[in-house]
Amino acid sequence: MAYQIPRGCQDLLPEDSYAWQSIERTLREFCYLYNYDEIRTPIFEHTKVFKRENDSSDMVNKEMYTFQPENSKTSLTIRPEGTAGVVRSFVENKMYSSPDLPVKLFYMGTMARHERPQKGRLRLFNQFGVECLGNKSPYTDVETIVLAYSILKALGLKDLKVCINTLGDEESRKNYRETLKRYFAPYLDELCADCKRRYEQNPLRILDCKVDHEHPCMQNVPKISDYLNDSSQEYFKTVLSLLDELEIPYEVDPGLVRGLDYYTHTVFEIVSLNTEMGAQSTVLAGGRYDNLIPYYGGPADMSGIGWALGMERLLIALEAEGIELEKKPDLDVFVMCLDESARSYAFQTLIELRAYGYRADMDMNGKGFKGQFKAADRAHAHYALLIGENERSQNMITVKNLHTKEQTSILRNDLIIYLDDHMESEHHHQEDSYEKNTL
Amino acid sequence: MAYQIPRGCQDLLPEDSYAWQSIERTLREFCYLYNYDEIRTPIFEHTKVFKRENDSSDMVNKEMYTFQPENSKTSLTIRPEGTAGVVRSFVENKMYSSPDLPVKLFYMGTMARHERPQKGRLRLFNQFGVECLGNKSPYTDVETIVLAYSILKALGLKDLKVCINTLGDEESRKNYRETLKRYFAPYLDELCADCKRRYEQNPLRILDCKVDHEHPCMQNVPKISDYLNDSSQEYFKTVLSLLDELEIPYEVDPGLVRGLDYYTHTVFEIVSLNTEMGAQSTVLAGGRYDNLIPYYGGPADMSGIGWALGMERLLIALEAEGIELEKKPDLDVFVMCLDESARSYAFQTLIELRAYGYRADMDMNGKGFKGQFKAADRAHAHYALLIGENERSQNMITVKNLHTKEQTSILRNDLIIYLDDHMESEHHHQEDSYEKNTL
Repeated sequence: MAYQIPRGCQDLLPEDSYAWQSIERTLREFCYLYNYDEIRTPIFEHTKVFKRENDSSDMVNKEMYTFQPENSKTSLTIRPEGTAGVVRSFVENKMYSSPDLPVKLFYMGTMARHERPQKGRLRLFNQFGVECLGNKSPYTDVETIVLAYSILKALGLKDLKVCINTLGDEESRKNYRETLKRYFAPYLDELCADCKRRYEQNPLRILDCKVDHEHPCMQNVPKISDYLNDSSQEYFKTVLSLLDELEIPYEVDPGLVRGLDYYTHTVFEIVSLNTEMGAQSTVLAGGRYDNLIPYYGGPADMSGIGWALGMERLLIALEAEGIELEKKPDLDVFVMCLDESARSYAFQTLIELRAYGYRADMDMNGKGFKGQFKAADRAHAHYALLIGENERSQNMITVKNLHTKEQTSILRNDLIIYLDDHMESEHHHQEDSYEKNTL
Repeated sequence: MAYQIPRGCQDLLPEDSYAWQSIERTLREFCYLYNYDEIRTPIFEHTKVFKRENDSSDMVNKEMYTFQPENSKTSLTIRPEGTAGVVRSFVENKMYSSPDLPVKLFYMGTMARHERPQKGRLRLFNQFGVECLGNKSPYTDVETIVLAYSILKALGLKDLKVCINTLGDEESRKNYRETLKRYFAPYLDELCADCKRRYEQNPLRILDCKVDHEHPCMQNVPKISDYLNDSSQEYFKTVLSLLDELEIPYEVDPGLVRGLDYYTHTVFEIVSLNTEMGAQSTVLAGGRYDNLIPYYGGPADMSGIGWALGMERLLIALEAEGIELEKKPDLDVFVMCLDESARSYAFQTLIELRAYGYRADMDMNGKGFKGQFKAADRAHAHYALLIGENERSQNMITVKNLHTKEQTSILRNDLIIYLDDHMESEHHHQEDSYEKNTL
């Protein structure tokens, strides 16, 4: 009987886990520099947390893993994205009463969407995101975008472009929505079924449609910029001028409306220009939301802004640019047992090495001399310890440097001091390169 | 309308996240010393991965979050524990053909059990665990136990006891199961409904029953040690003697049978003796499983061993022993904007500080002078930068050390050099204490 991973899911295998850990460390460290704290919300929430009234997005309407546990009337949904749970927690835990708004939070974790699996689109995928809650200022918008841009740069991505747009405040959006309705009305019969639903719920999302984007009516769609009121225009102008001052390269993209209904004012994406990324070129996306905190029961007029990136897609972007990802580090010491009678002596040595902070291992399968050497090679061990009956009976250990092939016998009691002395220079070297990589 | 977290779930709030990150870092670093690699498997699997034939455990029988996605005939289950998914992945990815068995894997993540919430028992909880797959040797058993014990010691737990027992190999277990059936047969009518099911599926689990443990028949239950065959006895003896040599304190507990059906040979728990832990004293538990890898389609006779700990319960144990947990670190620099006209100048300074690796922030809400000082205090900022119209027009910055209250004016261009010089000694100090804590 075969047991398989569910369709659209991926195991993160041991050889790839070091790259993930290293990327996550960089993400966390940048967030800490920006005074963001981590939050972890449950992998499922009450369904109504995600299924917002009048939300037109596909994600909410047909892509959610929704279920009722046995003997329970509660409808639960595995989170399809991170923002809703974070805002729910922000409100439920009354973080809005903090004397130091905005509250700046980051999260990472698995999300689930029940859509057709395809390249770069998994059913279970991992997101990293930030939410900056309880403040509305163009400075906050720019701070959030700079954090995103700096992180991607630090990870090594070069071919990046910030695409930015504004949807304006509620008044401007309403204005624009009505204009779009009037504009699309004559074409409605020719548009796809999803767009007919979007027309009623949120006509902005018709601009995002992948089915209808070749329809002739898409050529002359009215632009949001012509329907912004003065304060929305002013807000966006300040955002752009701050980006100019910080020399962040950006492009205003009037067609950028983002797939989620809740955005107001600034929306943005960071796109990889690398040709290998194909249709999946958006690495990171986000925007401001004036209405989400009040929607979940928080103070009226309290605004937030955030972005998220998909880890799997980020890895594709890093690989497309040929960026070297972190691999499993070499083993410090491989302990070789040459006689069965010395096994317990070798094992105790192994345990002591680890207690002193050395990455060490030994064969547990009774491999012969040659087999153990090969295993030490595969682990790229720096040192091999040769331990046989001679060594055991004399309380000695033979140390072989597998890089220089030098070999020497030392007292068992001197082992840790010997390794501390000989590996120190290399350890320092490793620490340096670690700092360079991550900041 | 109120939005609440689902019953039995907890948000990890920002102020607690630093403790979790620090504990997880220690867990990971110990695993790396022992040459374990991380694996991440999906949060749900096909239900049959968890619902093993003839499994008598409550977890499998009535505590799982099982569901079918809409328009799908696939039954999925959110993982109730970590081992099944890891072994499924080990087999599916043919890791058993590695030249260096055992394959040593660790995992961390959220698990879900639909049971009645109570203190120390959540419906969504977090486990950290290891699996050592593809080798059967008393040395491996002991290595696994030493890793567990060392981690808990390194985290600061003092009042620890390793409880250990053996269930023997398949032959011994079968022998014992039949003995137990004969023994319990006359009392069957008096035992609880669950025990009647256990009697058929796995009578060992009757010994674990919390309902029937006061029943008089529990006094003279036959002991597994009397039904072990020679090789099982020999195996366990070697395990104990290796523990003796390494001076790991343990106690053989003949009543320890562990809640899961798949264990063979060595089973163990690490228990906190701290009285505040009450009934939830088991911090970590695990054991060997001879049959699980073949069950999932791996090579016959390939054995594994592993353990897991619950993060939430670990934190309770750490708190019960009064161990200080990591808190949010102090901010390096708080940027104070004294005139609106200098805001953009202050903001650019803030962004530059972060680019040079300083944890920095500023007020975004237009707080006054006093309010900004209070905010800097709450963030335990080391330095405040005072930036007003004077500073802006002269390209200067006033730096105030908030610990010594010293204040000085420097050229804007010298800021990073100034901070690098003045904070260096402290940074070195922090790095030292980091190493000491984690290894």
